[in-house]
Order: sequence, then structure tokens, then C-alpha cells
Amino acid sequence: MRISVSSLGGAGEIGMNMYIYETDRYALIVDCGVKFTKNDDPGVDLIIPDFSYLEQISNKEIILVITHAHEDHIGATGFLLEKYPNIIVASGRYAYDVMINRLKEFNIEPHKVYFEDFKPFEWGDFEITPYPISHSIHGTYALKIKVENQMSFLHISDYKIDSAPVSSNPFPLKEFIEMGNDGIDCMLADSTNIIKKGYTKGEKEVINNIEKIFKEHNGRIFFTTFASNTERIQTVINIAEKYNRKVILEGSSLIRNVDIARKHGKIRLNDENIISRKQMEKYENNRLCFIATGSQGEGASVITKISEDDYSNIKVKQNDLFIFSSRIIPGNEHRIINIINNVYKKGGKIITANNEIIHVSGHASKDDGRMLLNIIRPKYLIPIHGEVQHLAAHIDLAKEQGMNEENIIFFLAGQKLIFENKILINKEEIPAGKMYVDLNMNEIMDIEKLKLRKRLAINGIVMVVNTAEKNKSIEKNNLIVEIEGFNLKEEYINELKEQLIEYNNIEIDETREEFKEYAEVIIKRFFKKRFTKKPIIKIIDIHR
Amino acid sequence: MRISVSSLGGAGEIGMNMYIYETDRYALIVDCGVKFTKNDDPGVDLIIPDFSYLEQISNKEIILVITHAHEDHIGATGFLLEKYPNIIVASGRYAYDVMINRLKEFNIEPHKVYFEDFKPFEWGDFEITPYPISHSIHGTYALKIKVENQMSFLHISDYKIDSAPVSSNPFPLKEFIEMGNDGIDCMLADSTNIIKKGYTKGEKEVINNIEKIFKEHNGRIFFTTFASNTERIQTVINIAEKYNRKVILEGSSLIRNVDIARKHGKIRLNDENIISRKQMEKYENNRLCFIATGSQGEGASVITKISEDDYSNIKVKQNDLFIFSSRIIPGNEHRIINIINNVYKKGGKIITANNEIIHVSGHASKDDGRMLLNIIRPKYLIPIHGEVQHLAAHIDLAKEQGMNEENIIFFLAGQKLIFENKILINKEEIPAGKMYVDLNMNEIMDIEKLKLRKRLAINGIVMVVNTAEKNKSIEKNNLIVEIEGFNLKEEYINELKEQLIEYNNIEIDETREEFKEYAEVIIKRFFKKRFTKKPIIKIIDIHR
Repeated sequence: MRISVSSLGGAGEIGMNMYIYETDRYALIVDCGVKFTKNDDPGVDLIIPDFSYLEQISNKEIILVITHAHEDHIGATGFLLEKYPNIIVASGRYAYDVMINRLKEFNIEPHKVYFEDFKPFEWGDFEITPYPISHSIHGTYALKIKVENQMSFLHISDYKIDSAPVSSNPFPLKEFIEMGNDGIDCMLADSTNIIKKGYTKGEKEVINNIEKIFKEHNGRIFFTTFASNTERIQTVINIAEKYNRKVILEGSSLIRNVDIARKHGKIRLNDENIISRKQMEKYENNRLCFIATGSQGEGASVITKISEDDYSNIKVKQNDLFIFSSRIIPGNEHRIINIINNVYKKGGKIITANNEIIHVSGHASKDDGRMLLNIIRPKYLIPIHGEVQHLAAHIDLAKEQGMNEENIIFFLAGQKLIFENKILINKEEIPAGKMYVDLNMNEIMDIEKLKLRKRLAINGIVMVVNTAEKNKSIEKNNLIVEIEGFNLKEEYINELKEQLIEYNNIEIDETREEFKEYAEVIIKRFFKKRFTKKPIIKIIDIHR
Repeated sequence: MRISVSSLGGAGEIGMNMYIYETDRYALIVDCGVKFTKNDDPGVDLIIPDFSYLEQISNKEIILVITHAHEDHIGATGFLLEKYPNIIVASGRYAYDVMINRLKEFNIEPHKVYFEDFKPFEWGDFEITPYPISHSIHGTYALKIKVENQMSFLHISDYKIDSAPVSSNPFPLKEFIEMGNDGIDCMLADSTNIIKKGYTKGEKEVINNIEKIFKEHNGRIFFTTFASNTERIQTVINIAEKYNRKVILEGSSLIRNVDIARKHGKIRLNDENIISRKQMEKYENNRLCFIATGSQGEGASVITKISEDDYSNIKVKQNDLFIFSSRIIPGNEHRIINIINNVYKKGGKIITANNEIIHVSGHASKDDGRMLLNIIRPKYLIPIHGEVQHLAAHIDLAKEQGMNEENIIFFLAGQKLIFENKILINKEEIPAGKMYVDLNMNEIMDIEKLKLRKRLAINGIVMVVNTAEKNKSIEKNNLIVEIEGFNLKEEYINELKEQLIEYNNIEIDETREEFKEYAEVIIKRFFKKRFTKKPIIKIIDIHR
């Protein structure tokens, strides 16, 4: 039997993780994530994978297994299940509870299977064993995937080998060593941070630095991190308690994540130390610690709104300190800079991970990757989860560790690897790409549609309404020209009209069928020649 | 006599530097720069300062003094001189030659004054002495500005105290010490990098690291840095020569800068070692070094085009090495990531300043700033050139150095400081802001116009043409609805038309004067309610 591994996203890019393992009759999708938009994708809220490859395997029985509840692994699940409601979803309980919140918007209640730590479960030809691992969100799993008597995979997406977590378990080295001894034929593993030297630091490493800040500061503290990083939130709650500050939680996603983590016993709060913002007036500045959303400067986040004096009764004042305990995702710098400028103008201060070590990554560095290779000793390595340069660095690392070069596979989204008798026999191309979601309009666009939106903004739109009677010649005052997105002087509009009425001299057809086409050519040429500009053109011929 | 200092840009933001010193009858503008656009400013090529404050001082005689030829200091000069052709321009010869190239596009040949190192020149009440200083472009000056018997300023915008330059002179410490001894009342100084500890490294510091790369690599090398950094270009040309590589210069701005630097004796080339790309086939890969534009991943740059296989006969191949010897300006990360992905996909490699120390900044770090304060000992310090957080760090540094807190002035673009008898007596607000330039359309937009462009892309446009006869009721088939920028289902269009023809039931006026207004309200409400969307609305009533 042939076994294949494909990617619809996540290999060769950050975000939109989606991998598919297949046998003849069964398919196992691992994760279904979104990619974050850049500022210059107008009206786009999310980017999701193009699912059209699934049409090719619609005859197979499909399960979706979720490794953890980060948006780049679960964010597109709703769109997938809306289209393929029969897909079963398997995940840990924590990830499921985070995900189900998102699925409510789609009115979807999926067929689900909860899985348990280290307990194998079956899906057709597949036997899947979830291994709980350390990362920057609770409830993260690696998957051991066995295809009966054929081949075994380890799919370890986001991980780090954390020996110093705060509220989760250390990386299960013992179980991984056993797995390595049993033998793994092919490992798919995280490449995001492989370019970084050494080991990724454990969560405990940030405690001292954050504590130092709490010890020295005597004004209010506003702390922000990723809303899903409930371990970091636990860390700062502990520190606030130690330094006698009441905690105010702000931001719906943060509060929701804390609630879920609490329900699953992943986080411990002392209710006496949590207050609401209505109570804050009762406490001195040095008794307050806000934990709020906004570590990426998101427009609607609490920290952004506070910095703009637009959040309830909380205004930035002299001696306020903002702590950004997160890395800045490329593309978000400008938004963070705006917050920083606003806070400093009002006499506040900001500490980011650029100034102090107050954030540790959730992804394996070079030495984590090395250790994993040594423990698992897979025959094949497929670097996943990273830009092309990160995959390349992972390939270099495996070579350094002595792996056979031809067993290290450079693999990108849109490719399908085919194995037979544990041997890679072919690499094929499959349909894959990005789809852009406008949530307001409930519209899913391909790249061409998106380019049209950008073109509207950059090049504007020219509308011409021809009101001339049928079978009569077109006069200049029959033409209404409207322009949006740029200014055009009256003289140019006049010139354009003159060129358009030359249609009268062309005896193409009596019904004026070709006016529209003619006008489009004229207008296109006019703007290209005069302004090297390509506006969108709309022609309405009333009496054709 | 009152003396004032104002800023139209550059204080509290990166870019768009423009400062104005005034007496009763004279005005001295220092620099006139642009700010770079972000990806999400559609069709905007440049951002320039709002010059409208100059209307208030049009009775004064105005000179523009240029400190150096970086775009954030000279880029808006053409727009200024187009509006105010009588302004005299004073600058060093090198900066002038760079600038004049840009002014050609405007058909402007300004009235100019060249200045000489350390030689004072007069403009009305002002005596200006240019001090050549070290920065990341040749021909950079600080300005000592004396207002006769009244007050003396030091305006030192971009600088670092470089004791190890490659092809320019070391920072003139002796002359600055003398200036300090003579006394400076008020210093305006660069804050960009004040947040960084230690001294900014000298240009010579990068040589060893770049050399190491040349020594170890046996494929082709593609080197990129800012086109204006002719000192870095000299550095790499020297290294290429040492390692027996022929140099190919690519990119018009780079070639132009090299030509100007050469004309002024700032750079030395051995013509035998410079070849054209036509000659490259004659040499082995390890004998070639391309120096090209594109350090910020600019769309039209040589490095971007090479990475996309779209530049002449130069295609990326296995074992090509790209060296990015520059910092990545926030906002450009995505473009660089695209280049990196493309290069790695084809088997090439990239080294950036994130991996190795192959770039040094042109801006003063904390210890440079400290030294300058110690040497000059100004009564007043006005931090300029930086985001608000950088100005704040500069203020903190001056406090640390023992300056009197009330003599350290927090000053932003749009403010005017007024001095009398060497004392700061007032701070006023003046008009200032950003103007967005679309070069194709020769259109200068304010923020509202720009927002309209973005709104077009995000919200789309709805056009309704009403073809109903005057004094007749409007039927649904009289209405033509066209939509651009999003999709709207037929049923919604129908619903919209039904709402629009309800106009017939309203006896507002016989000439249908109010249909347009009515329709706008209806359409606006329809999209807001159904899709929380705010499209641009165009109503054309043919027979009104």
C-alpha cells in the first residue's frame, strides 16, 4: 500500500498549517490553521488554505487531528467543516474547548473524539498516539502515526524541549526515548526557530526578569502577552501576587483563555487577587497590575485602545509601565511603534522583549532540534513549520548530525510525498494556495479578487455612462464621467470625452454593441499613456 | 529679538526631517525630507511634510540648509521649491550633487550656495558654520547657528562619533571641543539610536566579518546595502579586490551615487576590477561579486528582481550567496522574507545583519550621545530625529548626565519654541502634518483623501444609475446597480432596488432633486445593517 504525506500550508511559510496523511481509503488531516493578514490586504480578516485538493480525495474517510489550539493550527477549522461537515475532529480536551468557541460562529458542532495522553486511537489504517509536549500554549501534542505494519511517522509541529515550565509538565523525554527505540521511519518537525543557536529557554527563565521590573516599579503595570499563553499569564499572576498587586484581566479572548485553562486545571488563581476595573480606584497605583490583550498592537485590543485614551475609564498617566512580553510578529512593528509613541507622549514607559529578556519562544532552537534528532533517529526527516530559510536551516542541521542527505526532504506546501515499503518513491504537485476571507461580506477570495481590491485603491475607478439615444451619434454631453480614488482635471475629462465620441466615426455596428469594448480600450490607453495608471473601468451604455 | 525653533517633521517620528529657525525677518530651514510609505498606503510613493506653516512666514527671507543627502533630509526639497522657488539652498557640494538629480524631475535649478568645512556664512541675522561629521553617507554636516549677539545653536541631526571610518575623516573632536568651549546655548541632536548601549561601531568594524564571508565562500556573491552608503560600497569593493573578485555594479541609484562619490574623491575604484554583466560569463563563480540595490526588498530593485528570475540574464543558482549589509527598516520584513524564500528555493543562501555583524549604524548610541553632551555642555538640549520613545531616552540620558531637567525640552513636530534673551519663554502649536504623494497622478493628498483610497479597497464601491424619465415613477428596471470590490448576491441587489423605488411614495419634489440624497441614505443603511460595511456610493440620476 502506498502512503502519502501532503501539505496544504505551513511548509515554506509561517502560518496556515495543514498536513494530510493518506492511505488508499483513509485520510488523516493534521491541523487546519490560518495565516495572519498583512496590513496591505484590504478588508481581509484571515487567510486560509485552499481546500480544493480535498475534492480529489472525497472518496476517502477523513479525520482531522488537532495538535494544539494556536490560530495557525485551528483557525481555519470552521471553514473546513462548513464545506465538509462529515469530517471527524480529534483533539485534546483543552484545544477542543478553545476551538469550539470559534466554531460557534459557524453553527458547527463537529463529530468529535477526545484523545488522552499517550493513549493510541485508531482511524482506519492509522493508529495515532498523542504525546503531550511543551510549547507556548497548554495542551500541545506531538502525534505518533503508525500505518499498520507499513510505516511509522512522528508529526511534531510546534514544540520546545522545556525542562523548566511553570504550570505544565516538562517535555516527556522518557517517552520520546522509548519511541525512538521502537523506531520512527519519518519525522516531520518544527523548523521555526532552528536558525537560533543553543536551546530555547524555559518559561521559568523569564520569571527573574519580570520580577525585577515589578520590584523596581512603583506606578501601575500593564502587562500584555499572547492571549493564548496562559502559562505566561500564570507567571505574571504569581509575580503580581508576590509584589502585592491586584490583577485586572482585560480583553475577551484573554478572559476566555484564562477561563478554559482554569477549567482544565492548567492555571491557578486566587480569586481575592483578581479585581474588576471598577474596583481599581480603591487601590494605589503600585497595587495594580493589568493583564490585557494587545501584544501585537491589534487595532481592537485593550492595550491599543488604552494607548489611544479610548478604553473605558483607563487612561495612560505619568509613571504607567507597559510590559510587552511577546515577540513582535513581522508586519506589526508600525502598530507597536504607534502604541509606544502614544504611551511616551503621556509620560508612560514601555518595556518590550527587545529591551529585556521577558519573553521566551515556544519553538525549538538548534540544540532542541539536535536533541530530538538524536533521540528519535528517524530514517527520513521532513522539516515543516517555517519559511523556506528555516526549512533549509533544519536540513543543514540534520546533515551536521550525520543524516544521509537524500533522506532529508525539502518539502513545500502544494507537494505530496509518496512512500512505498518505507521508501520515498515520488514527489508530486497538488493544488494548494491561499484564500482570503472577508468576514463582513462572508466572501472568500482568491488572489485575483484580492488584487482587484488593491487595484481599486491604488489605481481608482473610472465610470462612464453613455446616455445617447440608440442609432444617434454620441455627443460629449451624452457622456457622464465619474472618477473615484484620484483627481482628474476637467481638461483631461474633456479630452477623454473627445476621444470617446470618435466612436461615431467608426461604423462597427448599428446597435452600438461594441461601444463598451471600444470605450474600455480608449480609457485604458488614455490612463496608461498619460499617467502610467491602470484604473478599473466601468462602462454603462443606457440605450444599447 | 525673539528667536524661534519649529519642526514640521522628524521630531517624534522617523523621517520627514524639517526644522525652522526664525528671527523677525529671516528664516532658516534645516533639511526637507520625506518619510517612507508603508505597504498599506495605496498608490502613495512618498510622504512629505505639510508646508502650510510657511504661509505664516512668507514675509521673511528664507534659506534652506541641507545637512546631508539622505532621503529623509532632502527628499521633499523639490516639492518645497516648486511652491517657493525663491528659497535659496545652501549645502555641501556632495549633498548638492545628489540632490540636484532629484530636482531635475521638477525642472528646478535652485539658487544655491555651496558651503565649505568649518567656514561660517551669513544669512541675515544668522551666521551658520558647517562642521563635517561622520554618518552613513559622505558629506554630512552639523550646523552651528549663531544669531548675532543673541544665542547660539548646534543642530546635529544624524551623526555618530566614528573614530574608525574607511574613506571619510574621523569625527572632528578637536573642533567640537573648541565649539563647546566657546559655548552653545541650545543643542538639537539625533536620538535615533540613543536607546542602544555603548558606542556605535565604526565602519572598519564590519570589514573583518565581511572578509570572513568572502574568504569562505566559493560561489557568486551578491552584496546589497543602501545605495547612498558609498563608504560601505568602498569597503566591499576593497574586499572583493583582495579576494580576487571582479565587481559588477547594478542599479541606477547605486551607480549614480558611486559616480558622485567618485567625482568628489570620496571613493576609489580600480577600473580594471569593475566589469559589466555582459562580461560575467568570462569569469568563474568565485571570481564574481555583484553590488546591487535592494537592501530593503524594494519591488523595483535589482536584488528583488534577481530573486524573482526577472533581471536580465542573472538567475539565482545553487551556491549563490546574498549578503544584506543593512538593517531592515520596520515594515519591510515581508519583502525581505519573500526574497529569502525565493533564493533558498533555488539553492542560494542569504546572510543578513541578523546573522552576522555586517552592518553598523550611522547613528549615535548612548555613549556617543553622552560624549557629545560632555563636549558641548549646552544650556538647553532638544532631542530630535526619532520616535517619541527615542526622544524620551535622550531626555533620560541628559538627566543622567546631570543636566537641569527643565532645560531638556520634549519637542514634537508641529511645535514652535520661542526664546528671548537666551531663555525659553514659550511653546506654541503650529500647523504640521503629513501629505501623501502619488507621483503618477502628480497628486498630493491629505489624510482624508488617503483614507478614501483605503476605503475603496476595503469597502468597495456601489454605483446606481437611475434611468427613469423625469416626472415618471421609478421602476426597478430603471435602476442599474454596479458593484466593484466585493460580490453581492442577486437577491440583495433586488432587495436594494426595491428599497430605492420606494422613493416614488415620497412626495419630496417634482424635479426629483432629492433622489440622490435619498438613495445614498438607503444604500448606506442597507450595507451597514447587513454587512457592517461602508462602501463608497455614487448615484447618477440621468434625467433629473
